[in-house]
Amino acid sequence: MSEPAGGHRAGSGAAIRAAAESVTDPEQRVLQRIAEIRKRRPALRETAISMSHGAGGRAGHTLTQALFAAVLGNPYLDQLGDQAVVPVAGLDGALAVTTDSFVVSPLVFPGGDIGELAVNGTVNDLAVGGAQPLYLTAAFVLEEGLDVALLRGIVESMRRAADRAGVEVVAGDTKVVPRGKADQLFITTTGVGLVRQPGRLGVHRIQAGDAVLLSGAIGDHGATVMLARGDVDLEAPGLRSDTMALWPLVAALLDADVEVHFMRDATRGGVATVLNEAAQQAGVAVAIDEEALPVHDEVRGVAEILGIDPLYIANEGKLVAVVAAADAERAVAIMRSTPEGAEATRIGEVRADPPAMVFIRTAFGGTRVVDMLVGDPLPRIC
Amino acid sequence: MSEPAGGHRAGSGAAIRAAAESVTDPEQRVLQRIAEIRKRRPALRETAISMSHGAGGRAGHTLTQALFAAVLGNPYLDQLGDQAVVPVAGLDGALAVTTDSFVVSPLVFPGGDIGELAVNGTVNDLAVGGAQPLYLTAAFVLEEGLDVALLRGIVESMRRAADRAGVEVVAGDTKVVPRGKADQLFITTTGVGLVRQPGRLGVHRIQAGDAVLLSGAIGDHGATVMLARGDVDLEAPGLRSDTMALWPLVAALLDADVEVHFMRDATRGGVATVLNEAAQQAGVAVAIDEEALPVHDEVRGVAEILGIDPLYIANEGKLVAVVAAADAERAVAIMRSTPEGAEATRIGEVRADPPAMVFIRTAFGGTRVVDMLVGDPLPRIC
Repeated sequence: MSEPAGGHRAGSGAAIRAAAESVTDPEQRVLQRIAEIRKRRPALRETAISMSHGAGGRAGHTLTQALFAAVLGNPYLDQLGDQAVVPVAGLDGALAVTTDSFVVSPLVFPGGDIGELAVNGTVNDLAVGGAQPLYLTAAFVLEEGLDVALLRGIVESMRRAADRAGVEVVAGDTKVVPRGKADQLFITTTGVGLVRQPGRLGVHRIQAGDAVLLSGAIGDHGATVMLARGDVDLEAPGLRSDTMALWPLVAALLDADVEVHFMRDATRGGVATVLNEAAQQAGVAVAIDEEALPVHDEVRGVAEILGIDPLYIANEGKLVAVVAAADAERAVAIMRSTPEGAEATRIGEVRADPPAMVFIRTAFGGTRVVDMLVGDPLPRIC
Repeated sequence: MSEPAGGHRAGSGAAIRAAAESVTDPEQRVLQRIAEIRKRRPALRETAISMSHGAGGRAGHTLTQALFAAVLGNPYLDQLGDQAVVPVAGLDGALAVTTDSFVVSPLVFPGGDIGELAVNGTVNDLAVGGAQPLYLTAAFVLEEGLDVALLRGIVESMRRAADRAGVEVVAGDTKVVPRGKADQLFITTTGVGLVRQPGRLGVHRIQAGDAVLLSGAIGDHGATVMLARGDVDLEAPGLRSDTMALWPLVAALLDADVEVHFMRDATRGGVATVLNEAAQQAGVAVAIDEEALPVHDEVRGVAEILGIDPLYIANEGKLVAVVAAADAERAVAIMRSTPEGAEATRIGEVRADPPAMVFIRTAFGGTRVVDMLVGDPLPRIC
């Protein structure tokens, strides 16, 4: 998908605002057609990789679909979830596997660092698939000249995060590249987890009438990293990354037999991206209420000044859950009973039509489309 | 371990030659003391990462032991094998997991590319643990500006390698970093395999009297990449990387109930590093015969001109196997019956003393110590 020229610099909110085009009188027929177009496999028209391919929005989605999934495709990869759920002969249940590279800049930020992120991010990708995280691997690409004390602090941070999440880092690798060929440190973690009830969760289970829940306030991580990078001359002393492991919250829901249909953690691209992907894959509409969205004051302030919608800002400790309407209240209560979900709330519901669309009902009574992220307003968040 | 000043540039063979110090009259007492010193946990004295930390030799070993293993340590990681063998409740057997980042430069070289390497390398790390490779994950760090056609070719190469090896890439991730913050493309693959007989293989099973086998000629991959990089003004038209999946060869040995005690693929640091790590971990000596080592003429030529010992050059399709002496001939015959092991041969044997030492008997009747690699003569081979 080629981007319009300009307006896609770091910190620019123009792209996001353009994506959230106002539609006060949605014409069903037009929207249906848009939805149909969107369901086709997108074509990758660019000849070179741009930053927007890594921002968690439309360009990255196209790259994944038109290149990685098209070439490597198989039934597991084609699920395009945060984790693949795969069978192993003789195992009662299934394995979940997931992988993520972390390239966040700066390496250390208020509330966390790349090491903690690399553990929690992968633990969460397992957890939202209903998988108990068991084992992690960690592969390090080090830039020549990296400070060893900094590296040690980050690895110690990984150890603490792994202990908290109840996983063990069982295998690793280290590569070193010359000065100027990396940005200090990249970490790739891969997680292996156990899914006791395969098929219990998935986009295929989402249905009209389901409630959409959010485990807490949005945008803390992305806003923190943006400020920590110093690109923006703002101070928000109370702002901290929300990086944390969500498995305890997920386990509480599953153990209580809540009828959860789908979960995903809202990282790159934020809650808007999770909802769009779910709506597209499930062929449903999602309607959310702006007033119901929990946003901390500091994030609201940063977002307003930068002109960015918090719905698109990355989180590292928040999940979206789609649950049967009858179980919604109980699910929120269970989430709130955990430290991870203290600010959990219901933010909207699933509808049958128009498929593949996400709407937000604004505080002043209007409705607008919440589209996929276009461009690259928030680079290198994770 | 701090390096002596100078002499550790890319392509310099001085470090390697220095490491292979001549010892024609090994004094048992001195060697024992060296071995004792070596068994202590090394201290990481450098304050910054250098290229030698990634070369597969002594500095990298120290970094792994003194930082990663010291901080993240657990019984699985502490095995420090190419793969971790981990239990999963209810599974008949065990899982093997392994991870590797690939940062090879150039991305494409005679006989392969980074994509093929990333699949085969991880498949082989599973295979040498006796694990049937089942699933891979692949995480991509892309540099802004990377040519999309080049990326597509590399991903297609991964697909072909995965098909040949019988594995599926089930999960992936893509990150993009700004121009100048990576070197075109890094790929991290993680493999999950099934070990039917946990405990069948391992350094703990190595014993005096065992035969040491090698699955084929050494140095093809490393020599190819060095020339492809253009650092050295040499041509060797017949030279190609040996990148290939070794699982068929390993499966043939295991299925025939050969009494294999230990296997490892000889990648970064070459056969010398595999033998040193095995000797150290098992507390045994290994003696090999220089004349028995299969080395293709092109590699021998490149190595002689560069002053590098082929024993330290990386391979991407060769393994070292330690087998019970009584099964050695049968094992070589089985290996030779597979396309992967056509040039397999017996290269030496395990001895009780002096522990943690590797010797080579030279063609002219002498004996010298084959030490761990010091410095960084062969960077970014994988």
